[in-house]
Amino acid sequence: MNEKRNIAVIGAGSWGTALAMVLADNQHLVRLWGHKKEQIDEINHHHTNEKYLKNVQLPPRIKGYTSLSEALQGVELIILAVPTKAIREVLGNVQQVQQSPLTVVHVSKGIEPDTLLRISEMIEDVMEGNNLKDVVVLSGPSHAEEVSLRHPTTVTVSSKNMKAAEEIQDLFMNQHFRVYTNPDEIGVEIGGALKNIIALAAGIIDGLGYGDNAKAALITRGLAEIARLGTKMGANPLTFSGLTGIGDLIVTCTSVHSRNWRAGNMLGKGQNLEDVLANMGMVVEGVRTTKAAYQLAKRFDVKMPITEALYSVLFSNVEASVAADALMGRMKTNEMEDLVNILGERMTDE
Amino acid sequence: MNEKRNIAVIGAGSWGTALAMVLADNQHLVRLWGHKKEQIDEINHHHTNEKYLKNVQLPPRIKGYTSLSEALQGVELIILAVPTKAIREVLGNVQQVQQSPLTVVHVSKGIEPDTLLRISEMIEDVMEGNNLKDVVVLSGPSHAEEVSLRHPTTVTVSSKNMKAAEEIQDLFMNQHFRVYTNPDEIGVEIGGALKNIIALAAGIIDGLGYGDNAKAALITRGLAEIARLGTKMGANPLTFSGLTGIGDLIVTCTSVHSRNWRAGNMLGKGQNLEDVLANMGMVVEGVRTTKAAYQLAKRFDVKMPITEALYSVLFSNVEASVAADALMGRMKTNEMEDLVNILGERMTDE
Repeated sequence: MNEKRNIAVIGAGSWGTALAMVLADNQHLVRLWGHKKEQIDEINHHHTNEKYLKNVQLPPRIKGYTSLSEALQGVELIILAVPTKAIREVLGNVQQVQQSPLTVVHVSKGIEPDTLLRISEMIEDVMEGNNLKDVVVLSGPSHAEEVSLRHPTTVTVSSKNMKAAEEIQDLFMNQHFRVYTNPDEIGVEIGGALKNIIALAAGIIDGLGYGDNAKAALITRGLAEIARLGTKMGANPLTFSGLTGIGDLIVTCTSVHSRNWRAGNMLGKGQNLEDVLANMGMVVEGVRTTKAAYQLAKRFDVKMPITEALYSVLFSNVEASVAADALMGRMKTNEMEDLVNILGERMTDE
Repeated sequence: MNEKRNIAVIGAGSWGTALAMVLADNQHLVRLWGHKKEQIDEINHHHTNEKYLKNVQLPPRIKGYTSLSEALQGVELIILAVPTKAIREVLGNVQQVQQSPLTVVHVSKGIEPDTLLRISEMIEDVMEGNNLKDVVVLSGPSHAEEVSLRHPTTVTVSSKNMKAAEEIQDLFMNQHFRVYTNPDEIGVEIGGALKNIIALAAGIIDGLGYGDNAKAALITRGLAEIARLGTKMGANPLTFSGLTGIGDLIVTCTSVHSRNWRAGNMLGKGQNLEDVLANMGMVVEGVRTTKAAYQLAKRFDVKMPITEALYSVLFSNVEASVAADALMGRMKTNEMEDLVNILGERMTDE
């Protein structure tokens, strides 16, 4: 076991709290920051976070803070676990109070609309040079609920500085939580972000009652279009066959725990977007990511039929069943031609 | 719509019957052969096949036969939908009574233990040259129950003679049932066969209560080992990213309809193999395929940790939880190294 570290987890939602538990299980001192006083009081006095992790007892080693400057006391490493929408604001506040250069491990999955930055690029964009040591991304098939129950889970870490990624691997690795490294930061971030689009679409397919055969086809084509965009952006196509690609896609599209799937399911059953988002009460990253991916597809001149169909449902009032039927009819009849279009260019490039 | 054909479907289980329905929907004359008189009487008099497709009404255009020579009257095309174990015997009988050279479309998923032949190779091995026109494989994410309900489904056909595959594509293609072609016969057959191994293992993981995170990791690694073996056998690695690879794997590992998953689930809950097979009452192809894949891994000198772990549970009395824990601990820590090992060689070959 490596040395005990003083680590701040920024964001006390389900994923931030579950990761705080992994670190506490590994004997690290965890400072969990959230902005809601009631929730932080619950964490400190009852060692629970009921709204986000039902019936889970937190290790007392996790201390909650509502003050960012207190949370960052003596900290050189933060786990950033806030919705992508909040990253700029929260990191801006972090910069005001941080005491030393920080390594930032981000565990969010998204792309910023309009700027079209990946999360690690956003972090670099916000933080001033001497405030930032390294950026590491942690991603993979990992429902927070299961991690909090110490069910076996595997994730991948990546960074421009693989030494930093290996340090984070050591920090989190234990018997239940297995951490792998992958040097392809772009692929890891793109896979994690874009799977939420396919999960929304899978939820719609399920909401429409199309069945498992149709959903499997959707996921297959979904992975293909993620790989197509990611490869054009500079990712290694192999990453999409790994934990942060197909692995995360499967868990998000087939598990009842997935918010994006649940939101899609309500859309498929005929609810409108505003009602769905109001009902969820948690952030549905896939909605923003659909917008960003739609813009990326244009910028990189890549065909992304599922993303385009979902965009039309979310933002242009096209009925879900109309978009889904159009999608089914549109696929190529020679599967290999299609697959070669996606991955083949890159394969012959290498 | 292409011309009306006279087609025999050999095997009146759920998949044979569902495919007979697709052909009947496309106005073909379908002769469905099964060896149980009671079942065939039910098909002819009530237009149902309750044991295999609950609450489904069959088109009257489907005629049932228990006599193979009657079923093959005027037929030049058969859909072979029997368990892999029965293929040699049934095809032997077909040869005795066939009136003209046959195109054989097989829809079974397996590898023959000991000979280690793929199904298309078995068919070529059994049928004498002048009795056989073409062999076509039809595979993909397609639970029979959903096909019989005309839910959207996508499959792939492949053959050494792609003209024959395209003919079969035309025969089956309709609004609900989308058929794609892929010239990689080896990849299509290997993906279809080996996914049953991973489905059994996924059922075990679920039976042990490990959760969705662990299952997603298993499926990801499972696809990798299928691709590793398949590529060594001459398949195009891209095929494993398609409908007959990841698509079929997803549907088989995550759907309650899957027999292999159900059998694995019972094993994970502590039942022994004999009881599980007795309880199923249908053929569990994955058990035989595990034996064959274990032999193939040795012949082609390929590492297949999941197959080996499952083999130890099925045939060497290793406890499921012991095998699963060993598997989790055994994975490499650098994900990309592992993925490059699998697909990289082939990628740089091209």
